[in-house]
Amino acid sequence: MTDAARTQRHRERMQRKKAIVDASIARADQTKGLLLVLTGNGKGKSSSAFGMIARALGHGMRVGVAQFIKGRSDTGEEAFFRRQQDVIWHVLGEGFTWDTQNLERDTATAQRGWHVVQDMLRDPALDLIVLDELTYPLKFGWLDLGTVLNDLEHRPPMQHVVITGRAAPEALCEAADTVTEMRDSKHAFRAGITAQPGIDL
Amino acid sequence: MTDAARTQRHRERMQRKKAIVDASIARADQTKGLLLVLTGNGKGKSSSAFGMIARALGHGMRVGVAQFIKGRSDTGEEAFFRRQQDVIWHVLGEGFTWDTQNLERDTATAQRGWHVVQDMLRDPALDLIVLDELTYPLKFGWLDLGTVLNDLEHRPPMQHVVITGRAAPEALCEAADTVTEMRDSKHAFRAGITAQPGIDL
Repeated sequence: MTDAARTQRHRERMQRKKAIVDASIARADQTKGLLLVLTGNGKGKSSSAFGMIARALGHGMRVGVAQFIKGRSDTGEEAFFRRQQDVIWHVLGEGFTWDTQNLERDTATAQRGWHVVQDMLRDPALDLIVLDELTYPLKFGWLDLGTVLNDLEHRPPMQHVVITGRAAPEALCEAADTVTEMRDSKHAFRAGITAQPGIDL
Repeated sequence: MTDAARTQRHRERMQRKKAIVDASIARADQTKGLLLVLTGNGKGKSSSAFGMIARALGHGMRVGVAQFIKGRSDTGEEAFFRRQQDVIWHVLGEGFTWDTQNLERDTATAQRGWHVVQDMLRDPALDLIVLDELTYPLKFGWLDLGTVLNDLEHRPPMQHVVITGRAAPEALCEAADTVTEMRDSKHAFRAGITAQPGIDL
């Protein structure tokens, strides 16, 4: 085959492909506030949520963040996003339940945290809300799943919500518009490499 | 069981759990420049890379970004990160090969783009490099995988590199320290919802 024939064949194949892709894009024409769940054991759940914050800020949107669980306050994401004027950042956790070792206190902390989230879920001025590591308080029984689902359902119609954490409950995934399971194919941590600034914290 | 007994039992169980978690953290004590690959069909690959940029900036690190493929320049991530002084942002693509429909031009564009990346991979002042959607020029044959792997291998030892895109080549995953496969459990796009600012672009 000559180069010209190869070029022509590539063009024809790509024209057919483009028609298919364009038709599928044309079919997807609705907008709404999305509920996204990022779960699984792989790296990238929280960082993906933080990337969506950057995207939202680039469009002039307002963002609210609630970090459950996290006890440390020296992370890069917090330092960076607290400097941005359109971000409200709440750290609502005191660490994992094996750090605190006190179930009553964990539950009370999570419940107080959820009241903060409820205020955000009633505020149509917030275009995107990130509930980082919310799956853990659900899994540990500190928060009631029915209450959480109900509050999510009654949020403003154009408000996006991103929820991260391992082992997302089935009912939460059913309620979500988009669910990604991040599968851990290989992880530097298992090769003896510590959590590093810019990548993991 | 009384409340006090339950509290005590929870504490003991969590003390044992904490000892296990702490030991595993203590074993992971190395630092090095990581190569991360974020692949799979699920949502969250590029946004995870952008979240790591935010983390890195929060730690005062310098970041270089090369976006392959992407033809549009109205994305939130680009608008937002171009405002940040420690970020160098390159858009190196002209769209998917079914958009351009010209294999020679696609190849030439990708090769020029890789020269830009090579300069970043030789610059130890850049702490994190994001090669967004690099898997596509590899898959379409516009770039030589051997060259790419060789250049990655010879980068500065503390430089982190994050590569995103579907269908990452096996050899790239083998070279990586961390590989996450983002699995598409459910996607709003399939339910007729268009790509939305702050979430998808």
